[in-house]
Amino acid sequence: MSHSIKDIAAALGAQAFGAVDRLITSVQEPARAGPDDLALAMDVKYAESLSSGKARAAMVWEGADWEAMGLDAAIIPKRARFAMAPLTALMDQGQGFGAGIHPSAVIDPSAELADDVSVGPLAVIGPRAKIGAGSVIGPQCYIGMDVTIGKDAYLREQVSIGARVRIGERFIAQPGAKIGGDGFSFTSAEKSGIEAVRESLGDQQETEAQLWTRIHSLGSVVIGNDVEIGAITTVDSGTIRDTVIGDGCKFDNMAQIGHNVRIGRDCMICGHVAVAGSTVVGNNVVLGGMTGVTDNIFIGDRVITGGATKILSNVPAGRVMLGYPATQMDKQLEIYKLIRRLPRLFRDVTALKNQTSDDSKD
Amino acid sequence: MSHSIKDIAAALGAQAFGAVDRLITSVQEPARAGPDDLALAMDVKYAESLSSGKARAAMVWEGADWEAMGLDAAIIPKRARFAMAPLTALMDQGQGFGAGIHPSAVIDPSAELADDVSVGPLAVIGPRAKIGAGSVIGPQCYIGMDVTIGKDAYLREQVSIGARVRIGERFIAQPGAKIGGDGFSFTSAEKSGIEAVRESLGDQQETEAQLWTRIHSLGSVVIGNDVEIGAITTVDSGTIRDTVIGDGCKFDNMAQIGHNVRIGRDCMICGHVAVAGSTVVGNNVVLGGMTGVTDNIFIGDRVITGGATKILSNVPAGRVMLGYPATQMDKQLEIYKLIRRLPRLFRDVTALKNQTSDDSKD
Amino acid sequence: MSHSIKDIAAALGAQAFGAVDRLITSVQEPARAGPDDLALAMDVKYAESLSSGKARAAMVWEGADWEAMGLDAAIIPKRARFAMAPLTALMDQGQGFGAGIHPSAVIDPSAELADDVSVGPLAVIGPRAKIGAGSVIGPQCYIGMDVTIGKDAYLREQVSIGARVRIGERFIAQPGAKIGGDGFSFTSAEKSGIEAVRESLGDQQETEAQLWTRIHSLGSVVIGNDVEIGAITTVDSGTIRDTVIGDGCKFDNMAQIGHNVRIGRDCMICGHVAVAGSTVVGNNVVLGGMTGVTDNIFIGDRVITGGATKILSNVPAGRVMLGYPATQMDKQLEIYKLIRRLPRLFRDVTALKNQTSDDSKD
Repeated sequence: MSHSIKDIAAALGAQAFGAVDRLITSVQEPARAGPDDLALAMDVKYAESLSSGKARAAMVWEGADWEAMGLDAAIIPKRARFAMAPLTALMDQGQGFGAGIHPSAVIDPSAELADDVSVGPLAVIGPRAKIGAGSVIGPQCYIGMDVTIGKDAYLREQVSIGARVRIGERFIAQPGAKIGGDGFSFTSAEKSGIEAVRESLGDQQETEAQLWTRIHSLGSVVIGNDVEIGAITTVDSGTIRDTVIGDGCKFDNMAQIGHNVRIGRDCMICGHVAVAGSTVVGNNVVLGGMTGVTDNIFIGDRVITGGATKILSNVPAGRVMLGYPATQMDKQLEIYKLIRRLPRLFRDVTALKNQTSDDSKD
Repeated sequence: MSHSIKDIAAALGAQAFGAVDRLITSVQEPARAGPDDLALAMDVKYAESLSSGKARAAMVWEGADWEAMGLDAAIIPKRARFAMAPLTALMDQGQGFGAGIHPSAVIDPSAELADDVSVGPLAVIGPRAKIGAGSVIGPQCYIGMDVTIGKDAYLREQVSIGARVRIGERFIAQPGAKIGGDGFSFTSAEKSGIEAVRESLGDQQETEAQLWTRIHSLGSVVIGNDVEIGAITTVDSGTIRDTVIGDGCKFDNMAQIGHNVRIGRDCMICGHVAVAGSTVVGNNVVLGGMTGVTDNIFIGDRVITGGATKILSNVPAGRVMLGYPATQMDKQLEIYKLIRRLPRLFRDVTALKNQTSDDSKD
Repeated sequence: MSHSIKDIAAALGAQAFGAVDRLITSVQEPARAGPDDLALAMDVKYAESLSSGKARAAMVWEGADWEAMGLDAAIIPKRARFAMAPLTALMDQGQGFGAGIHPSAVIDPSAELADDVSVGPLAVIGPRAKIGAGSVIGPQCYIGMDVTIGKDAYLREQVSIGARVRIGERFIAQPGAKIGGDGFSFTSAEKSGIEAVRESLGDQQETEAQLWTRIHSLGSVVIGNDVEIGAITTVDSGTIRDTVIGDGCKFDNMAQIGHNVRIGRDCMICGHVAVAGSTVVGNNVVLGGMTGVTDNIFIGDRVITGGATKILSNVPAGRVMLGYPATQMDKQLEIYKLIRRLPRLFRDVTALKNQTSDDSKD
């Protein structure tokens, strides 16, 4: 499918210049772009590869002299990074999941699918599940009983959604995401070592070894509108209340959201993040890759964590955190520098001790 | 399904008071509980929400004046946290997986399923697999050849179990758990840089770049009784001997247990934990979320690790560990405090150096 | 299936001694080996268990007096660890996936499968996918549209491969691996807090809370020859160019390779590793378990990281790294020792301050 420069620019709310009726079939990096591609060169650093390449049309930086670089047509967006969203949406060839309900899908007769829902081969949809208009349930997905999914969902292959999960509109799930597993919650007949350690911060006290007995999850998961869940990310069901994911949250791959967790709206949760049980995360929070958050704490609005941060206690709103244990990023970066200088510090202190010892002999 | 207060209390081994024939349909937090719910208020901090809410029955703390809070009936358990286990087991509505063998399941004729086994839609069961009485094999599960699963197993959707895995009774697997993948074991024709670094702790010596040749896993996985495996947790097959998981172990989501690992009984392995190849873990060990354990080491009985602990060497029995690298928790917490005070220490040492330098000029 | 000692030694390029026509049915550790097993005892530490066990044949260390240990036959390899590769390949009983195309598989008529491709039950193969000769597509796998897989691939159960992914020869994927999910790439209409923090290293500046708009992945994933992907490891599609995995790379379980990442040849990527978007990794790199690599950086050839290393900036070729943040391993090990001695250092400095203060009073 091809699009004119003019139409692309319109979709981006950007300005088009030159041969605006030129047709574009795909998008490429400047060095690889051919005559039918739109080269992406939104920074002056691409000027050379653009001039030496075969592109005839490009999306360029503000003020670029596109004619001098041999282009016939150019698009100049207001904010280059934001223009990538409508541009890639327009050019996405998708997964090619077919329309309609594949005959190999196993759909409970009591499930309610809007007329235009697509269900892929070998998918399973359980009793009384409700799927909104325009939704695509990918191949080999599993939708449990009493699940509700709003309109315009797009589930890649092999996603599973457990009983009673309720999901808003425009939900996207990457391959193998798992929503609504039972929470990890166990108890013991007597006080356990881990309970003692939580109190004492280091001592198992007089506790005896215990057997673990499971606490079932009676709650489920509630997910707002415009949420995207990454490949094989898991969101567990709540124990009594539901686990809650707010509107507009985006999750990367292999994140794990524990039981009872509440996450506000418009958060960005990167890869391999884990948020342990019953923790409450505010709005507009960004958890960098491999961030861990302990259970039963509060993360304020607009908190941002750097990669691999491990949060062991509450974090006030607006803080930017880094490290293990999490510390404010600017302080942590200073500490990292000082730690690298520890060998010298130890030598300095040894020298001072020797000197003082010498002095006292004087 | 509803239960009387009297019957619930009996299931919990707890005392019931007031209108003990009152019927309960579900369990709720105090603020959300309605007249047909059992409010969970096992701590005095819930007194206000209980009084202001609509609950007529609650499970309350020892000594609570339930009548004064407007309740008709109350349950008082001995140990509130432990009472959650039988209570939630009783009230769990489950996943609604049907009884019997779904006609879309693909079951090898040589597989042996006890009479009352349930197999969900589009599940696959391989040659000579044996499934014990009362077991539920969820939708889209895969059970490999020569697998043995004991009685009363409950496998959620999309679980896979590789060839020759042997599992005890009352096994539970959350969505997408993967048991019996091949271990990650590779070798090279000549000594590799990583072999050199393991010896030298930092130097690749004169090694050359190597190709990696795989070592196949001839062993499998053996799992004891009463084990639960979290969503998309993986347990890899052993190289020669089997990987072994002891009775009563509980795993959260996205844990990874490497080839040849042996884990004792009644361990609790939290989310995102990784235990690398050939490591031996004792009994009653608790590995906190994101704990990593290196290969070929020993973790003693009753060791507990805090969140994100990284264990790089053997840990004696009973130790409580924290940090990267793992250190005893009380020492680590002291070190964390001192690290935060490093900027001041560096200033102090600089001042001492200046002063001593001044002194020596005197 | 049994093999003679002579044939096994030939497959290993090793020397055979004694009753070389003796037939072996499986491989065991020395203490467990019976008369029909080959005991693995390539180190002198196994001498006692070999002598006291029931093995009649063993693979032993250079110079072992195998007759004195009661054996009838012995194999002595040149490099014991490397001999494990052909030995385990020979003795592997595999998963028993059947030949041919299972009637329950759903294969698009436009897909091109070489004559001897095996497709397991309930697998799905999309439009125009091409699968090379000798390949095995396991049960419940999903192969998307326009995917190309070279000859002799072996996919365990429940693997998924998204549209347009191109994979070389002899590809192996463990259970549940997911290739070609959409990259995690989002943008906002105005500058976001995280953009500000990347510039300022700690300050969100005057940014306002933003909504996240997705950037679609127009690129796909290209994987070279002889690559193995671990259980539920994910490799995401590129944004414009493809994500690239070089020849000979081996991935353990639960690794996550972000969009646009390029990984060179013959790398070893251990469990729970995450490589964030657009990072470039050289050849022969080894990333230890739980290593994290931030986005948009370069890792040189032959870099090795210890367990749980977190790389926040470029690493030159040949470096051996450890820790968070990553530091050269030898320096990091020294720093770890000094950190453990911090309590004493603080006491020393306090003493020096007191002494100097006393001195100045003199």
